[in-house]
Amino acid sequence: MEITILGTSSAIPIPGRNLSGTVLKYENEHILFDCGEGTQFSIRKLQLHPSKIKTICITHLHGDHAFGLPGLISGINYSNKSDYLTIIGPQGIKELLDVSQKHQQFFADFPIEIRELEFMESPGVVYESAYYSISAVSLNHRIPAFGYRFDEHTRSGKLDVDLAEKLGVQKGPLFRELKEGRSVLSESGKLISPSDVLAEPKPSKSFCYITDTRYCSRSIALAKGCDLMMHEATYLHELKAKADETGHSTALEAAMIAKEAGVKKLVLFHYSARYPNLNPLYREAISVFPATQMGNDLETLRIE
Amino acid sequence: MEITILGTSSAIPIPGRNLSGTVLKYENEHILFDCGEGTQFSIRKLQLHPSKIKTICITHLHGDHAFGLPGLISGINYSNKSDYLTIIGPQGIKELLDVSQKHQQFFADFPIEIRELEFMESPGVVYESAYYSISAVSLNHRIPAFGYRFDEHTRSGKLDVDLAEKLGVQKGPLFRELKEGRSVLSESGKLISPSDVLAEPKPSKSFCYITDTRYCSRSIALAKGCDLMMHEATYLHELKAKADETGHSTALEAAMIAKEAGVKKLVLFHYSARYPNLNPLYREAISVFPATQMGNDLETLRIE
Repeated sequence: MEITILGTSSAIPIPGRNLSGTVLKYENEHILFDCGEGTQFSIRKLQLHPSKIKTICITHLHGDHAFGLPGLISGINYSNKSDYLTIIGPQGIKELLDVSQKHQQFFADFPIEIRELEFMESPGVVYESAYYSISAVSLNHRIPAFGYRFDEHTRSGKLDVDLAEKLGVQKGPLFRELKEGRSVLSESGKLISPSDVLAEPKPSKSFCYITDTRYCSRSIALAKGCDLMMHEATYLHELKAKADETGHSTALEAAMIAKEAGVKKLVLFHYSARYPNLNPLYREAISVFPATQMGNDLETLRIE
Repeated sequence: MEITILGTSSAIPIPGRNLSGTVLKYENEHILFDCGEGTQFSIRKLQLHPSKIKTICITHLHGDHAFGLPGLISGINYSNKSDYLTIIGPQGIKELLDVSQKHQQFFADFPIEIRELEFMESPGVVYESAYYSISAVSLNHRIPAFGYRFDEHTRSGKLDVDLAEKLGVQKGPLFRELKEGRSVLSESGKLISPSDVLAEPKPSKSFCYITDTRYCSRSIALAKGCDLMMHEATYLHELKAKADETGHSTALEAAMIAKEAGVKKLVLFHYSARYPNLNPLYREAISVFPATQMGNDLETLRIE
């Protein structure tokens, strides 16, 4: 499972820091979190296939997180291979895309499902596939904003084929029953339970994406125990008043969320252009949460 | 007078070719023609000041020519120095920006005047300042599209101060009268006309920007005799059927327009991504119009 950061700048792009967008690569599918202007350029630069993007989660509609959406959809359409797209985000996305389609005539030759979220006090599942689920919770910004969490479904351990056959389980449909967690009968009529023949379940991976929010206890509930949390760190804590006024977090607050949620790793991003040097933000965060890393544009993070 | 091309790709960005946008620098003001996604990035890369953009002319609303508009307006607003902005383009721009403002809350702390054009059979002035005018005419694309022409106002020649004083014209308000083209009386009561004391008027410069159109006789009327015409050349003429179907021109057709309009120089742009090598397009154009140049991204052209 790989996570590639497309942009780490807040509000305006500066040299070396583009606007928000992060791609999670899971199996043969890409999930995109946020889509600031220029997202389609970074996706092409990284030679990712736009048509592999099947799900887009938009935190909120401010331009630096959403102006790239119509361009990216056009790009996916040009790639000519997509079969469907799900877009999840705050209310308003549908009208924005409808008006853009009406006047700009960008069409998608594939169905687009838009899921507009209402206020969510507690984390809830907003998307579910056979292999993973995506949850969301409302954040605390100037306009409706949502944090997202990706959870891989627990995957069963490997079946010990030799052992199963030795216990008298016939190869075929019974193997599938065992893999899916159901007990079966052996040839001699003995009950064989999955734990008899399956290795330990593989640990499922989780990722959390939280940006454009003041320090928010709902973020802690969302990020609880996850493997990797990306969290915005727009300001140093000395600008806490400005952070509150503009609806953002300080590096210290991001680290506090990471600590309280017990995440394994914190990756900061969404830096104010006033910080050409990110070291002060880093030092502030590691004072509270040592397992912090500064996110960089076009960097790929791995969850092993 | 300088013209900087921001992007030469049609439809989708490819390495080295961004989407449409061209900046005309006149005195201390920038006029932008088209605003594809990423225009604000190129403007920053070139260290142009977003706040110097006072007029934006949009040919049509397809995304590769207009998706960058809300981001650029946000960028102008962040630069904190703009006093006004005029946006000229087809009907629909106003609703697009209104809906974007409603949901995305990007605000401009300066007035924005939006002039929506209706079908124009003949070139007509759509913007006039003290120093120049901008005309437009309808093109022939799949949706309403307009070509634009910039014309510097004729500037009077230099006043021969010594001669004027020798002829008995008092220095002061009478000099201004002469410069503005009105005759005055000398101290001895003799009528002095501007042509007695002014050098030849300086030739005024002109520029024409035509893209996303089939071969169109209205383009010839618009570009008549201009110093420099940028014209799209999406395809080679061997793909004339595809050009007609998609509402575009071939390099040969662009050259024919240049020849029939008697422009001084033709600069091609808006190339299909199918042409990594532009030489065939160039050869096709110069066979009809030798004063052709291939436009490149981030290239600056000068009209002397």
